[in-house]
Amino acid sequence: MANLASIRRPVDSEMREFQGHFKEAMRTSVPLLDHITRYIVKSKGKQMRPLLVYLSAKACEGTQARTHVAATLIELLHTATLVHDDVVDRAETRRGFFSINALWKSKIAVLVGDYLLSRGLLISMERDAVDLLRITSKAVEAMSEGELLQIEKARRLDITEEVYYEIIRRKTASLIAACCAAGAASSGADPERVEHMRAFGEAMGIAFQIKDDLLDFAPTKATGKPKGGDLKERKMTLPLIHDLQTKSPRERRKTIRAIKRSADHPETAAKLLEDIQNGPGIAYAEQAMLGHRNRAMDLLKELPESEARDALMDLVDFTISRKK
Amino acid sequence: MANLASIRRPVDSEMREFQGHFKEAMRTSVPLLDHITRYIVKSKGKQMRPLLVYLSAKACEGTQARTHVAATLIELLHTATLVHDDVVDRAETRRGFFSINALWKSKIAVLVGDYLLSRGLLISMERDAVDLLRITSKAVEAMSEGELLQIEKARRLDITEEVYYEIIRRKTASLIAACCAAGAASSGADPERVEHMRAFGEAMGIAFQIKDDLLDFAPTKATGKPKGGDLKERKMTLPLIHDLQTKSPRERRKTIRAIKRSADHPETAAKLLEDIQNGPGIAYAEQAMLGHRNRAMDLLKELPESEARDALMDLVDFTISRKK
Repeated sequence: MANLASIRRPVDSEMREFQGHFKEAMRTSVPLLDHITRYIVKSKGKQMRPLLVYLSAKACEGTQARTHVAATLIELLHTATLVHDDVVDRAETRRGFFSINALWKSKIAVLVGDYLLSRGLLISMERDAVDLLRITSKAVEAMSEGELLQIEKARRLDITEEVYYEIIRRKTASLIAACCAAGAASSGADPERVEHMRAFGEAMGIAFQIKDDLLDFAPTKATGKPKGGDLKERKMTLPLIHDLQTKSPRERRKTIRAIKRSADHPETAAKLLEDIQNGPGIAYAEQAMLGHRNRAMDLLKELPESEARDALMDLVDFTISRKK
Repeated sequence: MANLASIRRPVDSEMREFQGHFKEAMRTSVPLLDHITRYIVKSKGKQMRPLLVYLSAKACEGTQARTHVAATLIELLHTATLVHDDVVDRAETRRGFFSINALWKSKIAVLVGDYLLSRGLLISMERDAVDLLRITSKAVEAMSEGELLQIEKARRLDITEEVYYEIIRRKTASLIAACCAAGAASSGADPERVEHMRAFGEAMGIAFQIKDDLLDFAPTKATGKPKGGDLKERKMTLPLIHDLQTKSPRERRKTIRAIKRSADHPETAAKLLEDIQNGPGIAYAEQAMLGHRNRAMDLLKELPESEARDALMDLVDFTISRKK
């Protein structure tokens, strides 16, 4: 299995340059904002999204000056949604740091998110990258629609697989698809190729989210038990949706009662998690994930051979094999 | 004094058409989102910003199809900031309705705001109105910077007039300036005229905000006493800033102690509000407001005579004469 360092290698110098572009993009004369954006730069995550942008560009016609605009725009946008998410979930930590929300409260988090969105906008207009902005704006629209759809539907115990896919396609896969499409577009690829890369990103994004949902049921290193965070929030994901579908009406009613009880009864929740781990849903979701992984790979195979293309393949497998 | 109905007259048919454009702009397939956007359409406020867009266009080269795009974009953006503001201040009511936040919680409010911003983006790109988007993106940037500057500086008791103006220019005047500039640009006005209208909007916006700050010290109809909300939040505005500047060091220290005490001591707050009402700051702020009003009027006088131009003049005076 390739590690992240070797996956990054084909775009190492671009990723190094990116740090400067990203920092520059957030420069401001407002001291408080400057303080926060420095903190954002410092607490950067794995920067998977810029990596996808650069690798996608390189796997098409090659990275250009505009590829930096695409990577900066997408990372600004992704950061804005993370910052807004901080308001939202009141998460105490993110990436091991205190969340911006915990440090400076939600008012500031909303404003900083809006500021980052506007910076992304202005940069893409200054740099004459309206095509890239169009790709990413659709992702912002889809992401907020997807999150709202999730709020509305994911707690319904009769949620179907179809709705589950609708949610994760918009909520997660749309931004990963935008990374790949914007990278391709920035390289000067033709519209068919841009669409091809978007489809690849969508398949990869769906596999990524199913993996995320599976990890919630996997035993953690610390406790040997699954986190079960989704179940606590009564968020229905693929393994549980499938288990419910395959049960007899009587068993289904029993499980539904257990789901309803589990928020207030840790023992019921623990038993339910054990049932899910032993049920058919885990293997079913893994199969579904592999299906999307294979679709992503097939799309990559249609690209001309290159180091960047192979790195994208490794990145797909890295994503679906991660342990957290 | 002209009333709002007569001010609206020159763009009555445009304002009627606007309702359809705005509704259409928020159409979505997500049921929850559809529910909320219908509520937004229903609880529409005075729609001062679309009105400014249409009057500005008409006072320049005339309203065009693109003027509807400008008005829709700005109202989406303004609505997004109101919705985000709901998260922020946890205000219980806005415009007499329950706030979106109170009804559907802050997670949803953040997402709906982001969705509205992305809709504005997409519409301006679909309609080939990148110039209008550029004008409004700068306003989003300025507004979030201004709010953050306010959080950082407005509670400092040694805040200067200069910083006060810096805050209100970004926080409030930038969007009003964007309305006028976008209206002018949508009509096909040349860049100088667009800049002229932006300057007009900025002057009007500053006068508008000083009026807002003055109203906080004015006796309310209900109680005969001022609301004093800014003082409660320790937000320093022009009347108080000026009063502090004109006091002897000893009196200044006394007032500063009173400001600090007033959050927890309603009697101290009431006494302080009375002092401000009787102090020189009110008249000083009124003079400053009139100065910006006059600058706005002078800029309008340079436009060719028209019904729309006169309506803009009336709108300026309407704004600074309002009682709430």
